[in-house]
Amino acid sequence: MAEFMTETKQRSPGETGSAGAGDEPAPPGPGGRREAAGDAGAGPLDGQEAVALLERTRALVDPELRAAVDSLPGSMRRIALYHFGWEHADGTPAAGNAGKAIRPALVLAAAAALGGPGARAAAVRAAAAVELVHNFTLLHDDVMDRDTARRHRPTAWTVFGVPDAILAGDALQALALRLLAEDPHPASAAAAARLADCVVELCAGQHTDTAMERRAPDEVTLDEVLAMAEAKTGALLGCACALGALYADAHDEDVAALDGFGRQAGLAFQLIDDVIGIWGDPRRTGKPAGADLVVRKKSLPVVAALASGTPAAAELAALYGKPYVEGEAGDGGEIARTALAVERAGGRDWAQAEAADRMALAMQELARAVPVPEAAGGLLALAEFVTRRTS
Amino acid sequence: MAEFMTETKQRSPGETGSAGAGDEPAPPGPGGRREAAGDAGAGPLDGQEAVALLERTRALVDPELRAAVDSLPGSMRRIALYHFGWEHADGTPAAGNAGKAIRPALVLAAAAALGGPGARAAAVRAAAAVELVHNFTLLHDDVMDRDTARRHRPTAWTVFGVPDAILAGDALQALALRLLAEDPHPASAAAAARLADCVVELCAGQHTDTAMERRAPDEVTLDEVLAMAEAKTGALLGCACALGALYADAHDEDVAALDGFGRQAGLAFQLIDDVIGIWGDPRRTGKPAGADLVVRKKSLPVVAALASGTPAAAELAALYGKPYVEGEAGDGGEIARTALAVERAGGRDWAQAEAADRMALAMQELARAVPVPEAAGGLLALAEFVTRRTS
Repeated sequence: MAEFMTETKQRSPGETGSAGAGDEPAPPGPGGRREAAGDAGAGPLDGQEAVALLERTRALVDPELRAAVDSLPGSMRRIALYHFGWEHADGTPAAGNAGKAIRPALVLAAAAALGGPGARAAAVRAAAAVELVHNFTLLHDDVMDRDTARRHRPTAWTVFGVPDAILAGDALQALALRLLAEDPHPASAAAAARLADCVVELCAGQHTDTAMERRAPDEVTLDEVLAMAEAKTGALLGCACALGALYADAHDEDVAALDGFGRQAGLAFQLIDDVIGIWGDPRRTGKPAGADLVVRKKSLPVVAALASGTPAAAELAALYGKPYVEGEAGDGGEIARTALAVERAGGRDWAQAEAADRMALAMQELARAVPVPEAAGGLLALAEFVTRRTS
Repeated sequence: MAEFMTETKQRSPGETGSAGAGDEPAPPGPGGRREAAGDAGAGPLDGQEAVALLERTRALVDPELRAAVDSLPGSMRRIALYHFGWEHADGTPAAGNAGKAIRPALVLAAAAALGGPGARAAAVRAAAAVELVHNFTLLHDDVMDRDTARRHRPTAWTVFGVPDAILAGDALQALALRLLAEDPHPASAAAAARLADCVVELCAGQHTDTAMERRAPDEVTLDEVLAMAEAKTGALLGCACALGALYADAHDEDVAALDGFGRQAGLAFQLIDDVIGIWGDPRRTGKPAGADLVVRKKSLPVVAALASGTPAAAELAALYGKPYVEGEAGDGGEIARTALAVERAGGRDWAQAEAADRMALAMQELARAVPVPEAAGGLLALAEFVTRRTS
């Protein structure tokens, strides 16, 4: 259910796997986060530490993930191998593009932050379980949303049909929980219960999202969209961090704090993702300007703008009230006007300030569980990485 | 994925909850089973013991099941409450028709057979988990098969839409595995791993089923249909019995034997269900005669008949080669002719003999794990109950 990084179908089709954020323009200021990260040195800020972490995560987690997928019966395996980018639709091997592994990286970084290298090594199976859950939700979301492209390839349901995409998603959820059930680590049962709870929250978030699509823009409140974003995107990031903490044998309050860190960082990510969906540079995103406005998406800046009570809000409501028709108002004229209305109604400023607030909250939660900044390095780097990008 | 008893959408809309099999005509002879059951007295054979067991199971498992469903967020809870028959579509309370609880009854009976009343009491949560998995598969199967009625009511997707039915199914799977993850019983992790494995098998079975629907009748082999029936119906009955054995702290070989018992009994059930789908009395089934033939279902007797190499097989292949058009050949004339072709090609005899063989195998597996017939009483009664019905 959660859309994230290059795994989203809306974003950055031209982006390469190793694209850091170091050379990007200033991000929508996560001010609180910068302050907190200051002590940790320049490492996290240039994005290189995060890229190295993500690469190391893939190296650690992919064998576990691949073994789990290989254990599936042929019919289900074929779909999963395709979805993860390990096979082409005809069953021949592919280079693999299974996404950036942000979630498993958070599991491992959280385990390392609270329990050192031993905890990180022990948490590899939990990291794979989180990635399996993420991919189960992607398979099902694509069916529900009728999305036709993911990770620059046709979605599984367009290749194998809706029933098989549903079944493969079901099987991946089962694999995830089987991995934890078979893990002899003392934290595995608590981790499984938490991950299952998170699945329920992801389902509720996806429900809210699809239900909101059917409602008029002015019927949707900002609180609802924020709650939806937390359930759809924040919940699994929070759960990933919490699982890492559980595998580090952390106290309940530290597990909760790391969950809060992941949730708030996830919300900051979503806010910035929504800003990019309106004002992202088409040369960077590979999508037309204002992509989210074209489809009348009720993204966070839009709903904030609509709720502002300003004249620009009324103009935006009128524009969003009818579907966008290409070419009707000249080359993107209407979309430019819509983006301007969101901006004049304060939607852009609000989203950037809210993202900064969420990152500040995330840092507070992190500092509660990991008071020594050096130990939190990996988590800081990952939070920076996911919220700093501009495409 | 498994269709079963009054939970099937094809069968017995007029059947009441307490309909035993005692007054039915002779079932397709589970001969081996009768012999084995002889020692256990007349109890299991009249169906009353099974009915009592099922009622007791509902009383024990429903509170656990209801608590799990009530823990869902509102949007998911609403769909689950409707699916289980506890609420109407408008959210008002309903009398409840959550099916016969065969699977949870098997969990409890297996636990009691191998571990006595204490094991049965301990296995209630596992029984609820199995029932949650069963209902998750029903929600998804109905979406895939576009079935519009279940348990005499409109299916969830017709009421709440496809996305919400998919999401509610996802949430029920998560609830099932969370129940086991939160269960402090020493067998809960092994039970969770086994249940997750079973989900994968159910998915593969449903895949095979939907894929076979798209193939020509003469391209489907009997081995394939049998394997599909084992995966779709046998696997979860076997898993239910195995979970009961695990909660009785049984040895591995006894767990495997009880899995085999459930699987073989499940196959016997499916064979008889398929016989009823062709020759069932419309007054009992509430469906037109030859319901499965009308939709050209590749059921076990049909595929066996097609594979017989007889002149009747050729006639059947010709009939199945084109869709049934109502009224074209008079009042059911074509369907009667098709049923006769299946019968003359040996499909009916084969299915009844195969059902008897499967029940004999089931009894062998049961005797291996539970040598004392008195202890096996509940399992015998349930196996008898599910294979003895004629509508």
